[in-house]
Amino acid sequence: MQVDLNCDLGEAFGNYSFGGDHQIIPLITSANIACGFHAGDENVMNETVKLAKEHGVGIGAHPGFHDLQGFGRRNIDMAPDEIYTLVAYQLGALSAFSRIHDVKINHVKPHGALYNMGARDKDIAHAIAQAVYDVDPSLILVGLSNTLLISEAEAVGLKTASEVFADRRYESNGQLVSRKESDAVISDTEAAINQVVKMVKDNKVTAKDGTEIDIQADTICVHGDGAHALEFVSKIRERLTKEGISITKLGG
Amino acid sequence: MQVDLNCDLGEAFGNYSFGGDHQIIPLITSANIACGFHAGDENVMNETVKLAKEHGVGIGAHPGFHDLQGFGRRNIDMAPDEIYTLVAYQLGALSAFSRIHDVKINHVKPHGALYNMGARDKDIAHAIAQAVYDVDPSLILVGLSNTLLISEAEAVGLKTASEVFADRRYESNGQLVSRKESDAVISDTEAAINQVVKMVKDNKVTAKDGTEIDIQADTICVHGDGAHALEFVSKIRERLTKEGISITKLGG
Amino acid sequence: MQVDLNCDLGEAFGNYSFGGDHQIIPLITSANIACGFHAGDENVMNETVKLAKEHGVGIGAHPGFHDLQGFGRRNIDMAPDEIYTLVAYQLGALSAFSRIHDVKINHVKPHGALYNMGARDKDIAHAIAQAVYDVDPSLILVGLSNTLLISEAEAVGLKTASEVFADRRYESNGQLVSRKESDAVISDTEAAINQVVKMVKDNKVTAKDGTEIDIQADTICVHGDGAHALEFVSKIRERLTKEGISITKLGG
Amino acid sequence: MQVDLNCDLGEAFGNYSFGGDHQIIPLITSANIACGFHAGDENVMNETVKLAKEHGVGIGAHPGFHDLQGFGRRNIDMAPDEIYTLVAYQLGALSAFSRIHDVKINHVKPHGALYNMGARDKDIAHAIAQAVYDVDPSLILVGLSNTLLISEAEAVGLKTASEVFADRRYESNGQLVSRKESDAVISDTEAAINQVVKMVKDNKVTAKDGTEIDIQADTICVHGDGAHALEFVSKIRERLTKEGISITKLGG
Repeated sequence: MQVDLNCDLGEAFGNYSFGGDHQIIPLITSANIACGFHAGDENVMNETVKLAKEHGVGIGAHPGFHDLQGFGRRNIDMAPDEIYTLVAYQLGALSAFSRIHDVKINHVKPHGALYNMGARDKDIAHAIAQAVYDVDPSLILVGLSNTLLISEAEAVGLKTASEVFADRRYESNGQLVSRKESDAVISDTEAAINQVVKMVKDNKVTAKDGTEIDIQADTICVHGDGAHALEFVSKIRERLTKEGISITKLGG
Repeated sequence: MQVDLNCDLGEAFGNYSFGGDHQIIPLITSANIACGFHAGDENVMNETVKLAKEHGVGIGAHPGFHDLQGFGRRNIDMAPDEIYTLVAYQLGALSAFSRIHDVKINHVKPHGALYNMGARDKDIAHAIAQAVYDVDPSLILVGLSNTLLISEAEAVGLKTASEVFADRRYESNGQLVSRKESDAVISDTEAAINQVVKMVKDNKVTAKDGTEIDIQADTICVHGDGAHALEFVSKIRERLTKEGISITKLGG
Repeated sequence: MQVDLNCDLGEAFGNYSFGGDHQIIPLITSANIACGFHAGDENVMNETVKLAKEHGVGIGAHPGFHDLQGFGRRNIDMAPDEIYTLVAYQLGALSAFSRIHDVKINHVKPHGALYNMGARDKDIAHAIAQAVYDVDPSLILVGLSNTLLISEAEAVGLKTASEVFADRRYESNGQLVSRKESDAVISDTEAAINQVVKMVKDNKVTAKDGTEIDIQADTICVHGDGAHALEFVSKIRERLTKEGISITKLGG
Repeated sequence: MQVDLNCDLGEAFGNYSFGGDHQIIPLITSANIACGFHAGDENVMNETVKLAKEHGVGIGAHPGFHDLQGFGRRNIDMAPDEIYTLVAYQLGALSAFSRIHDVKINHVKPHGALYNMGARDKDIAHAIAQAVYDVDPSLILVGLSNTLLISEAEAVGLKTASEVFADRRYESNGQLVSRKESDAVISDTEAAINQVVKMVKDNKVTAKDGTEIDIQADTICVHGDGAHALEFVSKIRERLTKEGISITKLGG
């Protein structure tokens, strides 16, 4: 039994620092590297690919909307054809740094609003998946478990990794409870970790209405900003290890 | 005896059209495709790679400064390390579309101010060349004949193509007469074409002070905007053919 | 009886030209000048304010989303607070050029997706109107007739101008028929001009289902790109004049 | 006897925080507010004008090159006409927020590379000064003491404020020792503060070669990032007060 721990890295830009890449990277197995549209720039990308390689972490492209001000978190109403080229461009840009550092890109995880729109909109999901496939069919597409991003990626012939969240509550249809709801987040660390273990071991999660639902947990999304986040990841690692679950990068 | 005809393509952006890509492409052998920084965007790049493939034209990356407003023509005082990643990023971005259309990138030609700075500044020339080499050592770097861009590219181990201009006058040191000078441009079409033929056949050009200087002419820069430009290219083609010079894409 | 003819101007950017500002400006009474976010830049703005002043045309700010690639036509999911500052910033930027050329800004018309979102979403309409009011309460806000942009502008205390379209068909609820519908546009020039005259003289329009609805027509949106558009505007002017309707700039 | 303490504020952007605006603002008398080109955005500008007003600090526009990645620190080779509109646009943009918060803009200080180019290049200095004058002739232009920015501003009819640096060493020609030199910075706090006092009280500074040169010190540039910077400003304030020098905002 195994699971991957993924984290967004390389989100600094120019003179602006961001996150704690050096602190979190020893704790994770896959890095989603911003590609210069919602965050990151060519210098940051170069440094981040180098850092990920040094730590033996799986390298992933993390394409987002071209919206640095909104950090890629604002929905932009783009046509699927535009989404297709948006993803391809960013994936290509990152590939330059993977070639420079002689390391392979392993996966693609869309960022923020693009990730969420891809989870819910079939045409967008398809555009993302097709772009990844057409640029490199050997890549793994990371998407929210139980969503269109996963099914469309499979439909175009990509390997997929279903992502779960430790500290987010789920609806009975398998979707995340919206952050607009008061009970969207599991604030108790122990409860969050229990949820993770159950998802990984049993492929089950208890939805907010109490029903048990199926969920595929290939990779867990973690964060590296701040002491609390780092401590949370350490606790997840400890518990997973104790449960006999190997923490292994995607496809590994 | 052979020479390449190269032209900048894919310089439209979003809602803005630019140039006459469809008119010029049957007349050239290499396309320098803008990579989204000084011109072009991911949709335009996708279309332009497709167009170039359809016409059997050599595909080149045309990286420039990140200055859409200035069309990449304004010098920006960037450190060589930044130039390195700037070029790598754009080359990588274009490579996504080359993979989508299953066609190889053949060359890289820096654009505008980056091209001119690379011709004159050894550190910048080296940064450009090293970036290209590190991303793909099989690429041909196009630079102004007799400049540092060519010598640095050779020094890092790249194949090069020395570029000449039909309608620009040369200094006795092999550099172009600055556009700020009144006699920078050769306005007589016949004289311009004679200059081209002499450069290709004899590897010589008559500088503005009358001295004969050595010049390597692997590729001729042409333009596709407007009826006059198209007619000029047609006349160059006609004359080259008559002189027994094969018009062949770089490395072909 | 009077009506204004407004047109979007100053949509060039850097090296990219756009539209036929010099051709259309003698035919209109109000210019909506792009403010550098969805189109236009500081040089274009300076030129366009100068041009509008020379022709005695009413000067308006034409703020849009910060999306040059999408030309401000793509919905971006921004919070009302962000819309407020977005509009204020662009209005302020234009005001610099109005001060340079010693001419007053007369109106504000949101562009593209921002205009459409403001027509339909009360919070966004309010944010736009409040921004305009807080920067300069003497300005006229131009919005689609019968929409929230007009009612919210009135609610904050602004003067308004209700905009109508000559060649667009209307729903029985007063909204424009979506461009996705096949009958969105009135292709017959005579029919379009008749619709305009009826809207201005009778404050009525015949909706696509045949019902007569009320409509306020303070200003007519016209376009200046291409010979056909210019001819259409000339015909509208001719007919309005014949009908005794004075073509006068907003607030004039 | 009086002097102003100015600091760059509002340099956050979107999701990126920057500097310690809330910590430094009680210690300064003038705020140079980034205008969205090299740093800052419309939301940050709105907040920063509000903050400056609350603290009774003089509000200044801080225009820079349109280069967020380079934080406005990279020279961009723009024509004086472009510099003129660049400055006007940003000044206008800030004026929207000054009107929203009903507070006057007091001064303009160009940022980074624009400041340095304006100090050395007469045409650029003139373009900056003329833009400020044409938008609002009552503004004070802040420039490096003893440079073209000050003399050109006076030539166009603007009030000026000559800026000095506490911890930078001066050449005998009145210019700052380049940061590329090892002795550019005065690392001893006491020595730096002594230099400030001498500049303000005696209008003299001891250049690095030991000569005494004339210098006008209307405003001192301070920084607010980090505990050390804040402590340094506190010490300067303490000493100035002890010397009977009033710390007063520009024009106050």
